Amino acid sequence: MNVKSYIEDVCKRSREASRILNALSSRQKNKALGVMADSIDHFFEKISLANEKDWAEGEKKSLSPALLDRLKLDLKRTKLMSEGLREVAALPDPVGEVMEAWTRPNGMEIQKIRVPLGVIAIIYESRPNVTVDSAGLCFKSGNAVILRGGSEAIHTNQILAQILGEALSKVKISSDAIQLIEMTDREAIFELLKMSQFVDLVIPRGGEGLIRTVAEHARMPIIKHYKGVCHVFVDSDADFEMAEKIILNAKVQRPGVCNAAETLLVHQDLKDTFLPRVIRSLQEKGVEIRGCPQTCAAVSGLKKATQEDWGTEYLDLILSVKVVKDVEDAIGHINHYGSMHSDSIVTKNEANAQAFLSGVDSSCVYHNVSTRFTDGFEFGFGAEIGISTEKIHARGPMGLRELTSYKYLVRGSGQVRD
Amino acid sequence: MNVKSYIEDVCKRSREASRILNALSSRQKNKALGVMADSIDHFFEKISLANEKDWAEGEKKSLSPALLDRLKLDLKRTKLMSEGLREVAALPDPVGEVMEAWTRPNGMEIQKIRVPLGVIAIIYESRPNVTVDSAGLCFKSGNAVILRGGSEAIHTNQILAQILGEALSKVKISSDAIQLIEMTDREAIFELLKMSQFVDLVIPRGGEGLIRTVAEHARMPIIKHYKGVCHVFVDSDADFEMAEKIILNAKVQRPGVCNAAETLLVHQDLKDTFLPRVIRSLQEKGVEIRGCPQTCAAVSGLKKATQEDWGTEYLDLILSVKVVKDVEDAIGHINHYGSMHSDSIVTKNEANAQAFLSGVDSSCVYHNVSTRFTDGFEFGFGAEIGISTEKIHARGPMGLRELTSYKYLVRGSGQVRD
Repeated sequence: MNVKSYIEDVCKRSREASRILNALSSRQKNKALGVMADSIDHFFEKISLANEKDWAEGEKKSLSPALLDRLKLDLKRTKLMSEGLREVAALPDPVGEVMEAWTRPNGMEIQKIRVPLGVIAIIYESRPNVTVDSAGLCFKSGNAVILRGGSEAIHTNQILAQILGEALSKVKISSDAIQLIEMTDREAIFELLKMSQFVDLVIPRGGEGLIRTVAEHARMPIIKHYKGVCHVFVDSDADFEMAEKIILNAKVQRPGVCNAAETLLVHQDLKDTFLPRVIRSLQEKGVEIRGCPQTCAAVSGLKKATQEDWGTEYLDLILSVKVVKDVEDAIGHINHYGSMHSDSIVTKNEANAQAFLSGVDSSCVYHNVSTRFTDGFEFGFGAEIGISTEKIHARGPMGLRELTSYKYLVRGSGQVRD
Repeated sequence: MNVKSYIEDVCKRSREASRILNALSSRQKNKALGVMADSIDHFFEKISLANEKDWAEGEKKSLSPALLDRLKLDLKRTKLMSEGLREVAALPDPVGEVMEAWTRPNGMEIQKIRVPLGVIAIIYESRPNVTVDSAGLCFKSGNAVILRGGSEAIHTNQILAQILGEALSKVKISSDAIQLIEMTDREAIFELLKMSQFVDLVIPRGGEGLIRTVAEHARMPIIKHYKGVCHVFVDSDADFEMAEKIILNAKVQRPGVCNAAETLLVHQDLKDTFLPRVIRSLQEKGVEIRGCPQTCAAVSGLKKATQEDWGTEYLDLILSVKVVKDVEDAIGHINHYGSMHSDSIVTKNEANAQAFLSGVDSSCVYHNVSTRFTDGFEFGFGAEIGISTEKIHARGPMGLRELTSYKYLVRGSGQVRD
């Protein structure tokens, strides 16, 4: 079978399966998720063997230690996957929720109800847990899913998809509801991205390169989980102890994630007091500082920030630091250089906080809180498929509800239009 | 100035203006809409002169009478535009609405609030009223708008955009909030569609060709208002008088619109009773019938429907007719051949109605109501920018709310993540 007809076949079967999922009750779905979880636990050894194969091939290909680590599925990580499925089963089902209901003067009763999107394609890189996590979230929200993982995890992904498919068959649900693209060449991705008649949404999960490629080729809607160039702004009138705690948390606690801070903005009144102090604390934690001219003038020995630094997601122990005139200057900088992800103001001044919250054009804007809270679990969604950097459909942390669409049901008694 | 730098300049100014719009109060926006409406009325003669120019050039180019009619802006149509702006001013402002609010166990207060999308591009064809209608809706929802109308209406669109811009200046709002692309060559569209860093959403309004072109080239999110292949299904147990009334309304009352019916599905038990009767009634209204084999066997002299007919939006007095086994068969046909727009079942059987409402994967699914009600005004939204055929972001009739995004505001007292 050539790539095109293989992909088309997968997509068609996925569309068919989505009709079945749409009709399942919450109980049926939760039962299936439980069986999936048990199967993952039950087949740990099989998973482990497949994972060792990927790991061995990865070593032969001299993958980086970081990549090899991401690839690894030990007992603890496998347990996290099965537990994840059970947690998703315990969450409320978004499908069928009546979002609004009203009656028109002509007697028509209109209901806006939540429905599955249909078919969702997830294109991701090396972490094999994405296979199970995404499958669980898509399934619970009534969507058929087409998974396309990285070639370096293909053996693990194959066995995981097989286990999930067999679990579905056990409860008499078509295993086409969860399908893995087994062709690992890039052409398979390009063919998949053309299938707009069968795929309702594509979500790329991974590095900038992957996201760019998917965005360029996708003929269907895409929700990107793009980079986070997040800011903390410390206003002149702030609780400075709190400010320091928030900055250290936002930068140091886990620097490799999208909601970590990449730029610190400090009010000009603080450049000879708070600024040197916080820079020292950051340096003590091993953070490299790249400063604007005023920052470098206030603290000697710092690396100068280039124009490029202001838009860079370091994902590392590096922080760019800029002195700004006031809250308006800070908002302007963030809206210009930021990635509309997560930004925080630390201030005691309510008017400035309000200006920042309303003026910063980001999915999550914080007042006296670390940017690190942009997360589906921390927001209380109970699950997360990622953090959308889009402005349409879903913005910020995406839980189950963000994987749904809606439709209008209109009931009447013979109404016609004049 | 070359096309690229012209478009880039328009887009940048639009992004800047969107920051201003985001900060306007409802009162400021409503006042501006009132001044715009008054200006449209006041400058009717100027508009009329420009419109005559377009009309004269159109006649020279031998545009079809239908196209020339769409181009025409007489006093009545001009009044409709200014009244439209006043109606939009009277609608509730969606921006700032608190959609949800909750507190997390760690004390963080989270609010999900409605915000403008930012910059919206509208690409449309010959009707110049779209210039004013779209500008009003985007403005009220706090979005800057970039308008690109058809070349055949360029003089009218220019004067309209100028009048709206001057009205904004009168109330001290940047006229960049409403901009018209004055370059009429297609290259301008292609350049515009690359500007994903400045344009948050593009909405094409027009024929299939325009929509396809925009969809193929857009690098930013797009909401298509695509075709409507709408169905009416008459079940065996229906009020046949009601069924006939609904079919006639859905097909004949205004055949040239997307929510008109294109296919009639009839339960097999009715093929020798209701089917011939309703076909006769339709024929009396001038409707050409294209039947499936069973329909043609039941009623002599009909044209046979081809495979292509089932997916065709005629926008004309033509109806394809098919006999189906039961409600499941009807649902299957609609999900396969329909365009997920508007579909109706006529039945007295509650279980069948429920199966149809939940099984048909369309934005608006009706029970005992004509498909013609899929419309922002008929739904009570007070306005409409179109009818989305997407499943993400906005589905079905789009009013002001569907032109917005949301963001999360998180207030705390120094929360950091462990």
